[in-house]
Amino acid sequence: VTEARVIDWADVEQTEPLPGILRQTIHGDQQSMVRYVYAPGSVFPVHSHPQEQITVVLSGVIAFTVDGKRVVLGPGNVAVIPGGVHHGAIVEGPETVVTINTMSPRRAEDPLSS
Amino acid sequence: VTEARVIDWADVEQTEPLPGILRQTIHGDQQSMVRYVYAPGSVFPVHSHPQEQITVVLSGVIAFTVDGKRVVLGPGNVAVIPGGVHHGAIVEGPETVVTINTMSPRRAEDPLSS
Repeated sequence: VTEARVIDWADVEQTEPLPGILRQTIHGDQQSMVRYVYAPGSVFPVHSHPQEQITVVLSGVIAFTVDGKRVVLGPGNVAVIPGGVHHGAIVEGPETVVTINTMSPRRAEDPLSS
Repeated sequence: VTEARVIDWADVEQTEPLPGILRQTIHGDQQSMVRYVYAPGSVFPVHSHPQEQITVVLSGVIAFTVDGKRVVLGPGNVAVIPGGVHHGAIVEGPETVVTINTMSPRRAEDPLSS
């Protein structure tokens, strides 16, 4: 069981699971929170995972494919992606994109499953 | 079961559960995402709920009390609050505060439980 804690994103390990895509993860017991920074031109291939995902765009514009449909997300947009639904993302514009994804149930440590 | 969907925070109903505290909620099946805007001086009294909560501060500075301990959170800070742990918040500074809270399991529609 996790304890109450306060974290600074600046102290969370950052990995690059795909070219130009930086990822940081914070795990609770019930959910995982993932912060992504996507460089212009970066691509997250279409995939799925059993967890429900809610993505919030904090900055930049990113094109998602969700269940075969294209949706362009910008700041203030949220995508709710049920478990098992295929999705992917590509940064077509010139801006770096920052998103927060919440995954529930808690995600395993699979480096490509988000 | 919810379907995949894209939402703009601007289209989500905003309520004021406490003076100076504006709330918007998006529900998935596994989790609820809550966006709060806190005016300077606003107070969220200490409370608890069975859901695990992860709070991300997007802007402003807010003092949380978590399990009796004071922690001051600013942009880039994240608080992980297990289910059942008492917590509250107060905006002591001059800035409006925006946070995203994720709650899992999905939250019921209790207007004060977050």
